[in-house]
Formats: sequence, structure tokens, C-alpha cells
Amino acid sequence: MKRCWIAAVTCLMTVVMMSFASVAIAKVKPSVETAKCLDCHEAMPGIVSQWEDSAHWDAGVGCYECHKAEKTDADAMDHYGFTVSIIVSPRDCGACHPKETAEQEASHHAKAGDILNTKDGILGQTIGGEPAVAVGCRQCHGSIVKANADGSLDTNTWPNTGIGRVNPDGSKGTCSACHTRHRFSKEQARQPQTCGKCHLGPDHPQKEVYEESKHGILYAAFKDDLNMDQPKWVAGEDYFDAPTCSTCHMSATRNQEVTHDVGTRLSWNLRAPISKRTANSEQKLADMKDVCSACHGEPFVEGFYTQLDEFVVFYNNKFAIPAKEIRQLLMDEGVISKSDFDEKIDWLYWELWHHEGRRARHGASMSGPDYAWWHGIYDVAKNFYTEMLPEAKEACERAGKPEVYERIVATYIDGRKEHEWYTKGFDKGRIEEMKKYYLERYNQKVN
Amino acid sequence: MKRCWIAAVTCLMTVVMMSFASVAIAKVKPSVETAKCLDCHEAMPGIVSQWEDSAHWDAGVGCYECHKAEKTDADAMDHYGFTVSIIVSPRDCGACHPKETAEQEASHHAKAGDILNTKDGILGQTIGGEPAVAVGCRQCHGSIVKANADGSLDTNTWPNTGIGRVNPDGSKGTCSACHTRHRFSKEQARQPQTCGKCHLGPDHPQKEVYEESKHGILYAAFKDDLNMDQPKWVAGEDYFDAPTCSTCHMSATRNQEVTHDVGTRLSWNLRAPISKRTANSEQKLADMKDVCSACHGEPFVEGFYTQLDEFVVFYNNKFAIPAKEIRQLLMDEGVISKSDFDEKIDWLYWELWHHEGRRARHGASMSGPDYAWWHGIYDVAKNFYTEMLPEAKEACERAGKPEVYERIVATYIDGRKEHEWYTKGFDKGRIEEMKKYYLERYNQKVN
Amino acid sequence: MKRCWIAAVTCLMTVVMMSFASVAIAKVKPSVETAKCLDCHEAMPGIVSQWEDSAHWDAGVGCYECHKAEKTDADAMDHYGFTVSIIVSPRDCGACHPKETAEQEASHHAKAGDILNTKDGILGQTIGGEPAVAVGCRQCHGSIVKANADGSLDTNTWPNTGIGRVNPDGSKGTCSACHTRHRFSKEQARQPQTCGKCHLGPDHPQKEVYEESKHGILYAAFKDDLNMDQPKWVAGEDYFDAPTCSTCHMSATRNQEVTHDVGTRLSWNLRAPISKRTANSEQKLADMKDVCSACHGEPFVEGFYTQLDEFVVFYNNKFAIPAKEIRQLLMDEGVISKSDFDEKIDWLYWELWHHEGRRARHGASMSGPDYAWWHGIYDVAKNFYTEMLPEAKEACERAGKPEVYERIVATYIDGRKEHEWYTKGFDKGRIEEMKKYYLERYNQKVN
Repeated sequence: MKRCWIAAVTCLMTVVMMSFASVAIAKVKPSVETAKCLDCHEAMPGIVSQWEDSAHWDAGVGCYECHKAEKTDADAMDHYGFTVSIIVSPRDCGACHPKETAEQEASHHAKAGDILNTKDGILGQTIGGEPAVAVGCRQCHGSIVKANADGSLDTNTWPNTGIGRVNPDGSKGTCSACHTRHRFSKEQARQPQTCGKCHLGPDHPQKEVYEESKHGILYAAFKDDLNMDQPKWVAGEDYFDAPTCSTCHMSATRNQEVTHDVGTRLSWNLRAPISKRTANSEQKLADMKDVCSACHGEPFVEGFYTQLDEFVVFYNNKFAIPAKEIRQLLMDEGVISKSDFDEKIDWLYWELWHHEGRRARHGASMSGPDYAWWHGIYDVAKNFYTEMLPEAKEACERAGKPEVYERIVATYIDGRKEHEWYTKGFDKGRIEEMKKYYLERYNQKVN
Repeated sequence: MKRCWIAAVTCLMTVVMMSFASVAIAKVKPSVETAKCLDCHEAMPGIVSQWEDSAHWDAGVGCYECHKAEKTDADAMDHYGFTVSIIVSPRDCGACHPKETAEQEASHHAKAGDILNTKDGILGQTIGGEPAVAVGCRQCHGSIVKANADGSLDTNTWPNTGIGRVNPDGSKGTCSACHTRHRFSKEQARQPQTCGKCHLGPDHPQKEVYEESKHGILYAAFKDDLNMDQPKWVAGEDYFDAPTCSTCHMSATRNQEVTHDVGTRLSWNLRAPISKRTANSEQKLADMKDVCSACHGEPFVEGFYTQLDEFVVFYNNKFAIPAKEIRQLLMDEGVISKSDFDEKIDWLYWELWHHEGRRARHGASMSGPDYAWWHGIYDVAKNFYTEMLPEAKEACERAGKPEVYERIVATYIDGRKEHEWYTKGFDKGRIEEMKKYYLERYNQKVN
Repeated sequence: MKRCWIAAVTCLMTVVMMSFASVAIAKVKPSVETAKCLDCHEAMPGIVSQWEDSAHWDAGVGCYECHKAEKTDADAMDHYGFTVSIIVSPRDCGACHPKETAEQEASHHAKAGDILNTKDGILGQTIGGEPAVAVGCRQCHGSIVKANADGSLDTNTWPNTGIGRVNPDGSKGTCSACHTRHRFSKEQARQPQTCGKCHLGPDHPQKEVYEESKHGILYAAFKDDLNMDQPKWVAGEDYFDAPTCSTCHMSATRNQEVTHDVGTRLSWNLRAPISKRTANSEQKLADMKDVCSACHGEPFVEGFYTQLDEFVVFYNNKFAIPAKEIRQLLMDEGVISKSDFDEKIDWLYWELWHHEGRRARHGASMSGPDYAWWHGIYDVAKNFYTEMLPEAKEACERAGKPEVYERIVATYIDGRKEHEWYTKGFDKGRIEEMKKYYLERYNQKVN
């Protein structure tokens, strides 16, 4: 509460002091060229007004300064006597923001478009189709933007603000994926919703996990106290009440600078079918723990990571590795084809790691228990025991090779404590205990 | 920032000017009748206080002005000497708001209750049951409200604020579905959450799509800058930073008046099994593009619609039309019955278009890539290839008519480039490329 | 609007009055011990700053006052000369907050950990595994915290803030599950997001239902008007525009005190496989209706409960009881084993009541129509008719006992009006009506 009064007093005094000052004039005037742009583009008041509320406006950086192009640029177009391009690429932004651009170019984000040449891409383009890839996959991963002969942009590839967009000038990424045109606001980019444009859904529900977590709950409660609109934004110096995605993955701490190379604090690869440590994971882990330490003591942080590490190893060993090897065995023994997505078990395995197994791991890593369990391991286990194993058995029988399934059971199930219940059933003692509980609590018998 | 100061100064001055003025008295006094109502109803402080914060209060429109009834009204009741009815219907509101009422009566919204006499209704009432329709379907679509002999309302049909409610006076709809009692706030009605009461979920996730989209991200970031509480609310004049549902579908632009006839800017029917253009779609499209132009340039808008149109046609041609025709063929050939929901393939087809296919189309039309792809076409394709086609095959075999499935394959799959992978598998080159990528990126072999 | 002016004037006057007062000093100074703690712990500025914004700070309740321990405590540790423990248990909080602690100890919340010794627990620990239970189940339900010999906490059991945590001192629960460390804010605890840490997801989506409901819509619109930061927070006295979870389940009304014993206003058990009235349900119902009456008139409240009660009975009778009895019959006749989760039908029945049936009931009880219907009864019915019954039939055939399925049909389906469609198909008249509607509305034929 005391902060509230201090803020109110400060606000009052500043208002009085500022009330006769010239408040509507930028520090630097727009250029002659930009003034010309505005003559017509005032008909698009949204973007003009957004820009007037931006730091760019204050700095005299206007339409022309960003959109000007060289005649030799692939997407250069003559526009009422000016040579401009629609796309302002990271290379363009880098003229004033070289550090940020270099970090982003080096990041995983800048390579997000590459995935469309992979298994995911096969899925999208073959099983789905190009028009679905254009409005779906590429809106997050980025398109390879093609300029037409006149400099206009091929609509198969644009509009697009995917984070891994390949621009006509060869640069990768798009700053406005996060710093939305034309405010380019730091405040907006720091909000969790910004990351949630892409980091959500059945295959990587980071947004949903964050919202469920204490971090997201505190953000909802105290977001107005976080000083998100301030240029300097150091956890533990400028705000204290909640972290956003940016806090942990990008923003400054008392010991680290802000970085636009996301991924530099990630010590586990939780996306892959089977999780492995990332390169230089020890340094990355240390950097993340440094973020945690703004609010959490060492026992908490170490305890958290012990639980996470054990969970990831458990996921790998109980489900992910066996599932992968079982499918491989079925392929090697000629029970199923070596192609993807043409057998039921291909889809089951795919969703086990790509959807369910990621949800589990993201839930665990960001403290969202519902995602770790119900959307996660519960779904993984249900798939493994009630879909994958029965389908493996049936596939072997259909192929006239029941001995392959026997080998699977002998290798992956029998004699492994964690799968004992599958062949031997539940311990009777536990079941009796459970029935007693339901009778007492709900006054009814449980089946 | 400059706006912030201007606002602060204005606020300060106004506060000073207003500080001795009479602030707690409405411009028009409540009527004698309303004052009588309040004598007792102050025991319901929620609604009384809400009303005191409404424009109605300021205008002297109180309890009695809205709830008064004629003795001949079906739902008229004597209430301590006053003749009143519980329901205030659009016809009642229309006494003061005739334009809004007329627009709403002409809208798709007013007909939302009719759907309960259709396929959806059969599903709800037969497979579900009346009590589920009452608390489920009808809470959005609207009930046919029945008055008891004493004017009280039949609880099978009320409480209900469904948008297509049929009122005792025969009028359709309910204004308070969006302008919630008893503030009847414009500001609240303009917020996306309002539409999200009904436009969400597995079969039309507009709320979720909006939240994922740049529009929703900007709304979350800048909603306090949108002047949503102002009577005049023109995109590009009164606000600049984000659109809400209302902005695009109902609210005023520089060239269009506000309308309560939702649907007048929709050029595609994205709800139907197979999407078609709406009546007068060209005008509707022009009206929607006019909204877009407050913030977006022509190349962006045209590019967006090119991508959308191609996507809808792709959905129709690759999945929706074949799925529909395949089911029809199975019916015509006596493989399955002509009834709905009594065969597995009935449910598969239903969810393909009604759930998955809508998610895909709504995702594409409102720029939510996760809905266009993962919740959309991915689910459509998975259903079509791994559920519908195998089930069609099995149904033909069960019926002793395997030649029908051969005809299906010959007609809908073979020789169609977009389905080639289903019978011929994946291109080997693509698979090798994918494996190489996974090895490099994740340091592990991919299956 | 008038409230706005009053608030502004009040604010202005208070600001002026307070502007020279000493604003950064708590009413009570931190203790000598706490001052010592701060010497080092200022390196964790998050929690220190949060505490400085808390009522504890104002009251001179600091680090030591809460974390001090007796040497004989299981989790006591020597910490630079002080005897402290990491966990501050409800017993510790109860030294100053005895009423709240006693209520919470008596509540369902305090027993949330017990469920891990039940069917849910078998599922988690056997089919999942301990590491998944640690980061999943126990993060909501609570762990049994184990102290190591040196007083540090076993990382298998901590970090954990589950609401039913069993603490080293034997007390149950954790106040910071809702009043998050180290602000311990009433305001935050009253927000719906707080409850949403655990009350969400496929098996109890209360958070999602609330967000869809009018209550949640109004909260989104008017949350700044709710005076949530005030100590006294009585619905209908201190706020009028929207209820939060807390309003209905815990907070004060004009006739009831605030209680930390959640569940005292719940007249139905909507969690159990088959819903029953709770103990003393009449008093509980009266208490909940008292909450409703702050905003709703008697006809509305009675109508709401009539619809809810009919819905719950319908769910029980049409689906839940038959599903349970059918599975029991299959067990009794030796068609399936008596163990849980080792037959397909075990999983189907489990999700029918534990996931789908709860979604339906929670949707109905909190006015979220999409959850009552699409996520609810639609999924229940689809499971019952297209999964459970066919699986029962197949199981009987596999077991060589087709007569058991015939008995099931004779007992539960035939001659029961609500299931007639399943064996006799749809009424032809309804189908024709539906086709006509689709033709008129969408200009296409419906299958």
C-alpha cells in the first residue's frame, strides 16, 4: 500500500509540473518523406495512431525510415515516387537495433521455418495441404516470402509474421511477430499473450501451463504493478510480483543482460521424442537458476529441479524409449511399413510424444500440475497401455507374426516393475483400501 | 505516452471542477412507481446498484418503466398492486431503442432457437435429454418461454437468456444476453468475453481463436486504451489499438453505422457442412474489408482473403465434399442405415464437419493458426484417413459389399493427387530429408 | 459513472492529505530477528518486496515471526544461529489466525491429500509413476512432507503447496496454496485464477465453466469495481457487479460470515460417480441461495435450482447408474475381471463419470452451457452409446457369453423411453423437419 501512495504523490506532482509543458510534440520531427507518407496514410488511422504512441515516433523514426528500399531489393516497389518495400525485415530493424537482431538471428526462433521441411512438414503438406499450411503452420513457423516481379508479395507466402519467416532479403525472422506493428511495444512483447500466439495448443501448451501456474496466477493478480512499460526491466529490481514468459527466457536479471536469443536458459530439450540435455546445458541451467533466485531460495530451486529431472527421466524410460523401440521393432520385423502415418500405430506413437508427452514435460517444467498429469502422463499412459500395446498385438496377429508381440512383452513389459500391473493386475490390498475410502467419503460402493 | 499526460491533465481538471457539483443525483428522477419498487428491492442490492451505474438510471428509466405489463400479457402478474412481468423482451426495449430491436429481430441471432428443431435438436433431445437441453443448448440458443396461468414462468423454459429466446409476447431474442442485467452496459457488450458465453468450445471456438490471434493479443495489451465506455465508438476515430468481436461484426466504422444485425459482414457460411458464399456476399465482403482498412492496407487485406478463400475451397474439396458423398453412397447402397447417429460413421462425419471442420475454418478466418491447423485440418485429416475411410471399408465388409468400398477408393482416392500418399505412401526423398534434420537438430534418429 | 467521480474526488483529497505524511514506514517495526534475516535475504528481492507490500509488514510480522521453529520440530534447522523451518504450516499461521485455520482444518480441502490413497492414487502411482505424482497429483492434492535428518525437506515431497499437504507438524493444508507467498494477499486469493490452479481441466473444469458463465463475463468487465482489496468484502454491501469463486463458496454475505471451510454451501456432491445430496444439504442449499439473493430474485433462484436438480437426476438415471450397473454385471458374470483399468470398459466407465459426467454437472451447476452440453452430456452420451455399449457387447462375445449382453439390453435399454432411439432409430417426422430446415437455411441437403 505504501507504494501506492508514493506513486499517487509522484503522479500528482508530475501532472502539475507537466500540465503546461508541450506534451503532443515528439522530440524529433518526422522526416519530410514520412510526412509525405502520412498525407495519404492518415486514411489508415489505426497504424498511424499506433505509431504515434510508439518510441519510434518520439525518435523521429517514421514510415519512410523503416520501409525505404533499394531499387535492387527483390521486394522494392515504386510507390508514388518513393522506393519502398512492404516487409521491414530484421536486417532493416538491425540498422538501429544491431544487438537484438544478431541475437534473434542466432536463435532457435529464426530457424522455426526449417521444421516445415521435416516430419511436421510432411504431415502438413501431404496429409493436410498447402492452403492449410499457409494459414496454419506457417503463421507461426514462418513462410519463405516470395516477391512478385513488381515487388508485390506472393499471397501464397504473405501476409505472414511467423517467427522464422525467410524474408526477401534473406534474413530470417520478423521482429513484429512479438513487437506488433505499429506500436512495437516492449510492454506488449513482455506479456504472456504475445508468446501465446504460437506456444499453445495440444502439442505445446505453454500458455495454458503458465496460466495454471502460480506464476500466471500472480501475473493476473499483480500485472499492473510490474512496470512492464519501463525501458529497464530487471527482475528483482524493477518488478517483484510475478514473472512473464519473457522474465525467465529473455529478460534481464541482476546478473544477466536481456537476450533475444531464446533458448539460452533451457537445459532440457522437452520437444524431442526423447528428452536430452541441450548443448552447454550446465551453463544454461545456471542462467535459469539465476532467474529463479530473484524470488526463490536455493532449497526451493534445487528441489524443483530434482523433481523435474526425475520426471523427465521417468517419462523417457517408462514410456518414450519403449514406445519408440517397439515401433522400430515392428518396422524391422516387417509387421508395419517404414513410412510415417500410414499405419495406426504411427499416429499413436506420434501423438504419444509430440502431443501428450510434450504436454506432460511442459506441465512439469513450468509448474502446471494439470498439464503434467491429466493432459500429460495420464494421456501418455492411456495411449501406451490401451492403444499402442493392443495395436502392436493386433498388427503382429494381422501380419501372422504373433511371436514379435511376444518378444515385445518379454523385452519391454515382463519383469519391469513399472509395468507389472499391466500383466499382473492391481495389488488387492490397494483396491480394498480404495473401496473403503469411497464408501466412507461418498457413501457408495466403487467399481 | 503523450496521451497519458493529456488524459491525466484532463482528469485532474475535471475532478477539480466536479468536486463540489452534485454527483450522486441522476439527471431524471426515478418515477413514483420505480421508487415504490425500490422500497422492497433494495434487498437485492446487486441489481439495484448495477442499475444505478447504468445509463437507464441517468435517464430516469427504472424498474417499472421496463417491467410494467398489460393485464392481457401472457406473463403479466399482479405484484403488490402493480402489473408487471419478469421478462423484458426486445419488444419492450424497442419502445426506446427501435432501431436496435429491429436489427436484432432481423438477425441470425434472433433465429438461433430454430436450430433446436433440427439435427442438433434431435441430438440434444433424443441422445441427450430435455434436462440437458434446458441447461445446455437452450442457454445459448434460447428457449420458447412458457408462462404459467398466474403469469409466473415455467421453469422448464426459464431462467434463460439465450440469444434466440422466444418470449411470451412472441418477440425473439433477449437484449440482456449481451447487455447484461442490470447495467446494460455498452462497454461490457463490446468485450470479447460477452460473445464468448456461446461462441466457444469444440464446435465453434471463436473466443479461443480470437484470444490466440494478434487481435486478441493486442486487446489484452491495450484494452484500457480503447475507450470502450464511450457512446460513440468508431474504429479509427475513437480507438486504434485492437478490435473486439464487436468491432468487426457490429460496430461503426468511418463508413458504416453500428448494426445489431450480426452477419451482415460475413461473406462465407463457415458453419455449414460444406461452406458456401452467403447471400449478397460481395456487399458483405466489401463491408468487412472496410472494417479491416482502419488498420490494414489493401495488399494485406487482399492477401488475407486470398489465403482464406483458398483454404475454404481446399477444405470443401479435399475433405468435406468427399466425406459427405462417401457417407451418402454408403446409405444409397444399403451399407448403412439412413438414420443419423445410429452408425459409427454418422458420428465420424458429424464431428468432421461440425466440430473439426468448423474449428479449421474459424481458425483460418480469424487468424488463429493453432485452430486452423492442430485443432482443425489436422483433426479433419486424421478423422478422414484413419477413422472414416477404415470404417467405410469395414462397414462394406460387414455388409458383404466390399465392391462399394472399391468404388469409393476409385472415385475419391485413386488418381487424386491430394490423396496419393494414402495409397502410395510418402515420397522417399522427403523422408530422408526429415530424418537428416532430426539427426542434426535433436541428435537422434527419427522413426 | 457517479461512483467514478466520488472515487476520484476522494482519491484527490486523500492524496493531498497524505502527501506529506510518512508513507514508507510500517506501523510496527520488524523484530530484531527479522531485521537480521533481511541482512542476507535482501538478495531475494522478490519475496522481500512482496512482504513489504503485505499486511504482515504493516503489522510487524516478519521472516522470523513465521519461520521460527522449536528445536524439537521435525523440520527445524539451524540457520546462522536461528532455529527455523522452511514450511510455515497452518498451525503456525493459526497462532494469529485461529478461526481461519480451524475452518480450513475442518474442510474438504484439508483432506485433499487422502485421495491419493484411492482409485485416483492407484491410477497415478501404478499406471503413471511416482515422479508424475510428485509434479502432477500432489501439487494440487498435497504431499506428505518428509523432513530429512538435518531438518531440510525431502525433495520427493517438497516443493509442494498442495491444499491438502500433510506438514511435518502433522497439520493439514497450506495457507499459501491460495494466499500466495509472500504477499498473502486477500485480493489475490479472492480472484478466480487462484482457485483455477487446481479446479480446471478435463475432470473438473470449474475455472473454464466460470469464465464462460455470466458471472465470469461480468468479472472480466467490472473486476476493477469490486473492491477486492478491502478487508471487509460482503456481497451486496461492498461490491455489486460480479461474484468470484470466493463470493459463492467462502466469502461473507449480509447474513453469513466468511468461512475457510469450503463446501459448506454445496448441497449436491457433483464429484462422485453418481451424485447424491451432501450431509445437511438443506442448510447448505439455504446458505447458497442466500448468496444468490444479493443479486437474484426468488423466481430466478428457484428456477435455476429446479433446472439443476432435474439435470443431475437425469444424468444419474439415464447414464451414470446404468453405466455403473452394466459394468458391475459384466464383472459379476465373469465377462471382465474385477480389477480396475485392465479392461477397455474400465477406462470408458471411468472417463464417463470422472471426466465427462463431472464436466456436465459442473457446467450445469455454474451456468456454463458449453460444459453442460458439448464437453458434458454430449460426451457422456457418445461414450455410453458408441463406446460402452458396443464394448460390452464385444466383451460378452469374446467371453462366449452373448446372453449377458442380451440381459443388459433387456434390463437397461429396451422399454426405456429415453433409450428408444438406440434400438428403434429416429422418428421419421423429426428427420424430415430437420432436412427441410437445412435446405432452407443453408441451401444444401443434409445427411
